[in-house]
Amino acid sequence: MIDSSTSLLASQRHDIVRFAMGSPANEAVPIDLFREIASSRLGADSFTYGATEGEPELIDALVDYLSTTSEPTAHDRVVITAGGMQGLDLACKIFIDPGDLVVVESPTYTNGSATAASYGAELLEVPLDADGLVVDALPELVSAAGRTPKAIYVIPNFQNPSGTTLSAKRREMLVKLAHDWNCVIIDDDPYGLLRFSGEDVPGFQCISPLDPLIFSVRTFSKILAPGLRVGWVDVDPEIRQYVINAKQAMDTCTNVPAQQLVAEFIKRGYLSTHLERIRFVYSERKSAMKHSLMRSLGSRITITDPEGGFFLWLTLKGDDAAISSTALFEIALAEGVAFIPGAALSPSGRFDDSLRLCFAASTPSRIQTGVERLTRSLDLARRAPYPGGAERHGSLT
Amino acid sequence: MIDSSTSLLASQRHDIVRFAMGSPANEAVPIDLFREIASSRLGADSFTYGATEGEPELIDALVDYLSTTSEPTAHDRVVITAGGMQGLDLACKIFIDPGDLVVVESPTYTNGSATAASYGAELLEVPLDADGLVVDALPELVSAAGRTPKAIYVIPNFQNPSGTTLSAKRREMLVKLAHDWNCVIIDDDPYGLLRFSGEDVPGFQCISPLDPLIFSVRTFSKILAPGLRVGWVDVDPEIRQYVINAKQAMDTCTNVPAQQLVAEFIKRGYLSTHLERIRFVYSERKSAMKHSLMRSLGSRITITDPEGGFFLWLTLKGDDAAISSTALFEIALAEGVAFIPGAALSPSGRFDDSLRLCFAASTPSRIQTGVERLTRSLDLARRAPYPGGAERHGSLT
Repeated sequence: MIDSSTSLLASQRHDIVRFAMGSPANEAVPIDLFREIASSRLGADSFTYGATEGEPELIDALVDYLSTTSEPTAHDRVVITAGGMQGLDLACKIFIDPGDLVVVESPTYTNGSATAASYGAELLEVPLDADGLVVDALPELVSAAGRTPKAIYVIPNFQNPSGTTLSAKRREMLVKLAHDWNCVIIDDDPYGLLRFSGEDVPGFQCISPLDPLIFSVRTFSKILAPGLRVGWVDVDPEIRQYVINAKQAMDTCTNVPAQQLVAEFIKRGYLSTHLERIRFVYSERKSAMKHSLMRSLGSRITITDPEGGFFLWLTLKGDDAAISSTALFEIALAEGVAFIPGAALSPSGRFDDSLRLCFAASTPSRIQTGVERLTRSLDLARRAPYPGGAERHGSLT
Repeated sequence: MIDSSTSLLASQRHDIVRFAMGSPANEAVPIDLFREIASSRLGADSFTYGATEGEPELIDALVDYLSTTSEPTAHDRVVITAGGMQGLDLACKIFIDPGDLVVVESPTYTNGSATAASYGAELLEVPLDADGLVVDALPELVSAAGRTPKAIYVIPNFQNPSGTTLSAKRREMLVKLAHDWNCVIIDDDPYGLLRFSGEDVPGFQCISPLDPLIFSVRTFSKILAPGLRVGWVDVDPEIRQYVINAKQAMDTCTNVPAQQLVAEFIKRGYLSTHLERIRFVYSERKSAMKHSLMRSLGSRITITDPEGGFFLWLTLKGDDAAISSTALFEIALAEGVAFIPGAALSPSGRFDDSLRLCFAASTPSRIQTGVERLTRSLDLARRAPYPGGAERHGSLT
């Protein structure tokens, strides 16, 4: 992680504006409610082994809650995981063998693609545009790769890092391709419940119900709190037993007190209220970042315009496109603002002209300050241009 | 798990004596202290992402605590894990490729051997005797396998399931063989701090310090509480970065509130007192089980005599040796006592004449009741002997 490698420097400047990490805002985490629940709920049943598939009270609460959303599920489809990351690990462990081809978005969440790579996958990066993964481009790229993929790893809503959402038409096309190729769609959607504008796009589970080729990975990390490490997968019942067996050999069960905390949070009805509140907060923050960027850098950049989630994607243009965002990072940190350079968000290091900015973790006035610092950093970088320059493989098409 | 497949039956008989599960006694889990710590410690830093290698406060507390034991460690050797199971998963993910030979004890902790198998390992079962793994037998078995092992999976103290401890001499021989073969020793020791009689045997880290071939897996599950899912690995600093990278792609970090809970528990000095107390409790329980078994079944069985941990291993002899412990399990459950049949504790289903009994989770009087029920079950099984009978591949030599 870039943040930790520069933590010494960062810790020397305490007021750094944190556009880098994909964590919820501190003030978006309901700590007082968690403490209240912990003091009343923790008991004799909190500290022994739980069921590998998850605490029944959490699965019940989750199924009840999801029945009120556009993506209902059922008890025999859910396995509770140690965050979304373990959901990805489970999908890869079950479906990927060394040498298998795995399609990933370009740019992508590189911790996710790294998990596929850790099982020996060969990654095929496929470009995105404003409607998400360019599914049209897939057949030709797959044909050039000489074999069909075993899995397609996609973040359909408010994609990390680009902020784009995969259109309904492309979702349908993708499901069709997955069936043609008998390949699994790893549907990683940590942000779907954080839509703050526009309309829900039908999820893969809705487009193709009861489909063993759709492996949906979900988490409470972004909507509630990442430190709990509680997420879930939503899979066809015939796949579920494989998931439970694989999880048994990974960590026996997810930590029980955190599952009870989340279950109680949902059962008391806090989740709906909480989500309403944070969607409003994140909507304001996205607007603040968009308008600050447009005011300060309007003609020098293009940005995506996410309808939810945490991130927007900034691409330098004109003369600024010659600046390496990897080199810019050090300058920016010295100026007091952090972000993730584009090259860290592509397995092959593309997008050195781009930046991932998290709008979720800073207040509008801090965002304004951060954008001013980013602008100063770009001005400094233009005066002392990056020598040599990293290879440019592409940008969001 | 056998327990869950029969949970319906078990739940119909609430007073079942639980010799099956390897969980600490409920009364050995310091729930009130946990609740007290949770209410004072949980705060703003409890719910965000933690460091992948573990919370610094827990690593500090752990290193301090272990400096008072026979197995001290250092900050640059420790990675906090989601229980011991994740430690095994990490070791296997890093070291094992499909087709690799992995030595396992016979009998063994089959969840551990299953993790190795899940990475494509071929398992070589090597017998145990009263001094643990028969290391003498290893070179010939390895030679017959036609290739050297990539890993040796061993539980050196109060082995699960046999209760035996690997002798010092054999540990030294095993380290030498590992070096000859350039193979890693997966040193899984969940019970080492639960010695209640005899003398500590030097650990692998003590026999061969700073050795990148020794991968030590530890956990708070047995000494504190399994539901927390907090453990650690103790590895050479040059291996540690591989562990951190692998864990990053598994679950990002271990759940933070549970790490803080354990850290605080150690920092307040509770762990030493707690261990003293539970060692005494488990010592009493082992004696109770041993004496009950000898009184009721003395001439019909052999049992191991563990100096710590949770389990003893019972082998039927004489006419009773014809009874399948897998078949006995159903009878015993109906009589109100649960155990793990031997065949479940060997990847190839050996030991159908043996039983794993957990003495840790029941009071002495419940143990007495359980042994009486077990005796009745054996009497019933002898009258209606198991038809056909499973193959007998071997027993503890």
